[in-house]
Amino acid sequence: MDKLTLHEDPRSGNCYKIRLTAALVGHRLERRQYDILRGDTRTPEFLRDVNANGRIPVLQIGDRFLPESNAACWYLAERTPLVPEGRFERADMLRWMFFEQYNHEPNVATLRFWLLFVGEGNLSRFQRDQLPAKRAAGEAALGVMNDHLSRAEWLVGDAPSLADIALYPYTHVCEAGGFRLRDYPAVCGWLKRIEKLKGFVPMD
Amino acid sequence: MDKLTLHEDPRSGNCYKIRLTAALVGHRLERRQYDILRGDTRTPEFLRDVNANGRIPVLQIGDRFLPESNAACWYLAERTPLVPEGRFERADMLRWMFFEQYNHEPNVATLRFWLLFVGEGNLSRFQRDQLPAKRAAGEAALGVMNDHLSRAEWLVGDAPSLADIALYPYTHVCEAGGFRLRDYPAVCGWLKRIEKLKGFVPMD
Repeated sequence: MDKLTLHEDPRSGNCYKIRLTAALVGHRLERRQYDILRGDTRTPEFLRDVNANGRIPVLQIGDRFLPESNAACWYLAERTPLVPEGRFERADMLRWMFFEQYNHEPNVATLRFWLLFVGEGNLSRFQRDQLPAKRAAGEAALGVMNDHLSRAEWLVGDAPSLADIALYPYTHVCEAGGFRLRDYPAVCGWLKRIEKLKGFVPMD
Repeated sequence: MDKLTLHEDPRSGNCYKIRLTAALVGHRLERRQYDILRGDTRTPEFLRDVNANGRIPVLQIGDRFLPESNAACWYLAERTPLVPEGRFERADMLRWMFFEQYNHEPNVATLRFWLLFVGEGNLSRFQRDQLPAKRAAGEAALGVMNDHLSRAEWLVGDAPSLADIALYPYTHVCEAGGFRLRDYPAVCGWLKRIEKLKGFVPMD
């Protein structure tokens, strides 16, 4: 395989997702770090050479660039046991990965970013006004996961898949955004199962 | 293949995406309609039997239920020419599909929903406060597409893929949300290419 370079901010769960996938499937990644709070991903050079959308993570494969964390995880894990063989199960895995980016990350991850890295006192009025809606939507997303995981060990079928890997990073640090993991006991058991996977690496 | 039933609101671009994919690959769908403004997808029966996340579309395959529009498109189109054969290109297609759900739909589709179906005068103060940010983010997403499409006929490689199908629905009706298609000339050319695909069906 071509040389793999992860363009990342190590504090980002979206970036950690890719490192975790690479570790579980046995790929080595070079890491190139950016500070999103300092605007490192909005420079003309970054927009021209790495991602016109001004965001990390980006997985560089040789001289090609692949933005979007879940697309990068797919690239690394395709044809490994982390992608189910059944047609329905493979689509159902993508179902949870789209749920992660639409219902979970914009709420659970954003509150962590605002409260832990920006700081509540530094939020704009516009951001502060969004706190209750993001809190409610994040709790709803964690509730959907907890409901499912109270009836199954893994999100798809009977084995870990990229669905679990995509939802682990921001879930396991959700308390930094003010969510209470003890409210989601089935999620807590699932977090522990992921942490026992062979090759698991923790967030920096 | 098992019988396919689409649980949908015909006004939703996310639902149309699945009908368009099915038409292009030659699958027949039964349609079961819900009114999201009336709360049809939040009833106890819907949450229990169709989608615990309270959303449409859901693609029913026999007696199994698959939420998330882009996961349903994947299910229908896997191993057809709409999913590229190259490993990088397949992941790059998913990249645009995640971009659609993260950067495009929450802005471009939400403004259409608010202005066309809810009505500007009926928006809450919280919704009205979000209009400028959603306008700017939607314009940025359309700009990223336009920039790419000014150098390529299709979003991935040299043929239409699910990336194009996922981004077509809300882009082609973006003016209902106050965006101006004439600001994105490369996008306009791409919309016309999609409308000429064999099997293309328009939105209801």
